[in-house]
Amino acid sequence: MTADAETRDAKPGADVEIRAEDGRLASGFIESVASAISSNDAARVRELAGDLHESDLGDLIETLEHDDRPKLIELLGKDFDFAALTEIDETVRVQLLEELPPETVAKGMRGLDSDDAVYILEDLDEVDRAKILDQIPALERVALKRSLDYPEDSAGRRMQTEFVAAPQFWTVGHLIDYVADTDELPETFYTIFVVDPAYKLLGSVPLDRLLRARRSKLLSDILEENPRTIRATEDQEDAARTFERYNLVSAAVVDDGGRLVGVLMVDDILDVIEEEADEDLRALGGVTGDEEISDPVFYTARSRIPWLLVNLVTAFFSASVIGLFEGTIEQMVALAVLMPIVASMGGNAGTQTMTVAVRALATHDIGGHNARRLIRRETLVGLFNGVICAVVVACIAGLWFQNAQLGAIIACAMVMNLVCAGLFGILIPLGLERMKFDPAVSSGVFLTTVTDTVGFFSFLGLATWWFGLGGPH
Amino acid sequence: MTADAETRDAKPGADVEIRAEDGRLASGFIESVASAISSNDAARVRELAGDLHESDLGDLIETLEHDDRPKLIELLGKDFDFAALTEIDETVRVQLLEELPPETVAKGMRGLDSDDAVYILEDLDEVDRAKILDQIPALERVALKRSLDYPEDSAGRRMQTEFVAAPQFWTVGHLIDYVADTDELPETFYTIFVVDPAYKLLGSVPLDRLLRARRSKLLSDILEENPRTIRATEDQEDAARTFERYNLVSAAVVDDGGRLVGVLMVDDILDVIEEEADEDLRALGGVTGDEEISDPVFYTARSRIPWLLVNLVTAFFSASVIGLFEGTIEQMVALAVLMPIVASMGGNAGTQTMTVAVRALATHDIGGHNARRLIRRETLVGLFNGVICAVVVACIAGLWFQNAQLGAIIACAMVMNLVCAGLFGILIPLGLERMKFDPAVSSGVFLTTVTDTVGFFSFLGLATWWFGLGGPH
Repeated sequence: MTADAETRDAKPGADVEIRAEDGRLASGFIESVASAISSNDAARVRELAGDLHESDLGDLIETLEHDDRPKLIELLGKDFDFAALTEIDETVRVQLLEELPPETVAKGMRGLDSDDAVYILEDLDEVDRAKILDQIPALERVALKRSLDYPEDSAGRRMQTEFVAAPQFWTVGHLIDYVADTDELPETFYTIFVVDPAYKLLGSVPLDRLLRARRSKLLSDILEENPRTIRATEDQEDAARTFERYNLVSAAVVDDGGRLVGVLMVDDILDVIEEEADEDLRALGGVTGDEEISDPVFYTARSRIPWLLVNLVTAFFSASVIGLFEGTIEQMVALAVLMPIVASMGGNAGTQTMTVAVRALATHDIGGHNARRLIRRETLVGLFNGVICAVVVACIAGLWFQNAQLGAIIACAMVMNLVCAGLFGILIPLGLERMKFDPAVSSGVFLTTVTDTVGFFSFLGLATWWFGLGGPH
Repeated sequence: MTADAETRDAKPGADVEIRAEDGRLASGFIESVASAISSNDAARVRELAGDLHESDLGDLIETLEHDDRPKLIELLGKDFDFAALTEIDETVRVQLLEELPPETVAKGMRGLDSDDAVYILEDLDEVDRAKILDQIPALERVALKRSLDYPEDSAGRRMQTEFVAAPQFWTVGHLIDYVADTDELPETFYTIFVVDPAYKLLGSVPLDRLLRARRSKLLSDILEENPRTIRATEDQEDAARTFERYNLVSAAVVDDGGRLVGVLMVDDILDVIEEEADEDLRALGGVTGDEEISDPVFYTARSRIPWLLVNLVTAFFSASVIGLFEGTIEQMVALAVLMPIVASMGGNAGTQTMTVAVRALATHDIGGHNARRLIRRETLVGLFNGVICAVVVACIAGLWFQNAQLGAIIACAMVMNLVCAGLFGILIPLGLERMKFDPAVSSGVFLTTVTDTVGFFSFLGLATWWFGLGGPH
């Protein structure tokens, strides 16, 4: 650790390093907090964890034993920053919120920006949510409820309802004085929004542009017209693409009438992008649902079993293809030894294509203009790599079983299966997308069914035909 | 499309919609541009594409036919925004840069922020890069070369060397006047950095904090001490984690002596996060290397073949396990029909565990404190789901082959394989990470080898033992 990093993490009053070199919370620090909690030493807990950044505090909560979590919050008292709850896994958060008294939660949430408060409230069930909302002053409650009325995963849910807006006839100087004199502005803002009396968005003024302008200028002279806006009902993923595409730091959220209702900040978008990439990745790995690393055994097992059962069905389907050739295998057991090779190589090649296709669909990199080219490319890549693998597999299999004809047959089957793998590796995700299914979730099952079936059928079928063996029953 | 979205995308002078409803470039727009290019109509090209945002322009370049790309840049002339080159695939960018005259590129790059210029230059080979650098004025050239000296994928490569820095004895008013009066400030900035005469970073002042302060205040009174900084040599992925963790919008980049050398912006970090998630996802799907959607067949095939050959080796290894039981299979062909089911279910369950583990390692969610718990959890999940799958598979297989004992044997093998899948699904990524290998890249090969081997061996071995069949040769 360099001197600089040390300075950064050292905290006044605390004698313990917070983070280890790899960026994880240091185990010494965790133990100090845990022991202070178990001895009910509020002063020591506050000294150790009272000034932590919300993100460090969140990590700390996740790391602590289940029973220590509410105790930590209790011991920290008013030093506990409820924003930390936005940084922890949903399972842990929901559990914790159910254990804390609603008054404590309501009081803690009043200091939060509305997007954080909504984030914390949205996963609770109706009853728990109502209990907490009841404790919140009417004005804030209405704002929170309005956000919660937007659909899940919409921009309206992620937006912050605190923002700085000004009329177009204000001067730069007037606005700067207003900002300096007003206490209840949002904690952080990067842009001033210019609105008409009905809050219809007229334009935006980034702070750096404001600073560069003379005090006497009118806002209407320096505003950026038609800034990129996000509709409140828009999916958060689409909003994230807009942020990425146009390198935004914050964006106005407007209702269907073009009225300013909130602002989306880039730090929330970072989380959205990470979440969405995560979802695709998990879906491709057969982990659907919102499983988290902190979930218990039963919950995890239950969320994973549906996928396994679906795969079991397709596995029986492929097995039934092998069953057609029982007579052939009886006469030539070498076929049973070699057949999984053809199937598994098809699966691997197909997965390569599918991974690229699914990701490109997610980032909108495939469209009408290049779909045909990609289908052609993937099929040719399958042919090309099929031939290379075929040569290798033919040599090894031929030598192993001292049978050149067997080598030739497995080579042909390999080429067929890898061409199919490339073709279906792209056609399946494209088809699912067109039918409005999520290609990340279900492409894999269909693809493996194709590559297993084609793999077994082509290899065993060719062998039956060529060697004139038992043949299909 | 709502009225608002229309206003947003409608452009003065252009009579064509730029983006279709799904966010992709509209095909009508692409065709208009292509036909204007083919008829060498510079005025029409400028009218259509002259005012495009760099990101739209980048998408347009990618979508155009290969030969039309340099023509577009030529026809746009000085209206072409070279920042668009940062928005396109590396393959397309490198090709395009090689085709354009170095003087044109050098001239276009002079208008760019240094991070964009470095991004464009870094993928070129030495010779091409030198040719372009030679055309750039000395001062800018030195800054670019310094950035290029930092290791690939380091924060130093991604940082912008233009920033606003001020001494601590300046007042807020002095700084605001300076900003209003100075022309060559960076295009966008969110923070003022406070430095000593040797450019050692003393603190930072976010613009909103600056606006809230009285003009007479000293910067030293309002600066945020010990702001989060990034070391220039730090990996961009670590920098991204810091941005995410502390919700940063920009961060000072310092050298080993704590001197301010640049600033990292959140929009570059968005790209890094997307890239890294993409890399993990592709690696898990067996797509290593930097393959892009625009790559030609041969390049794609070549980049994918190594992974297929590695898998071919492991497939032969599993086949050799089957080979041990040729005698058994000869006597009971049903085993050959059913054995892929056991192996494939192990592969699927193991992949679920591995996916979760690899992603948690990437986001630093697994550490010393929870590794043991996770190993225990995954093994128990394997046991739990193994039992469920075993019951299902036993019933179907027993009925299919009218053999209850066969059903019992496949059930036992299934449980064994799913427990191993869970255990190794987490141990393999953890082990690879500890040995400093990238778990996303190679966990899959090892895991499939384990689940195939255990699947075949347990099922065929149990059957051989129970039915007293041929046994290993």
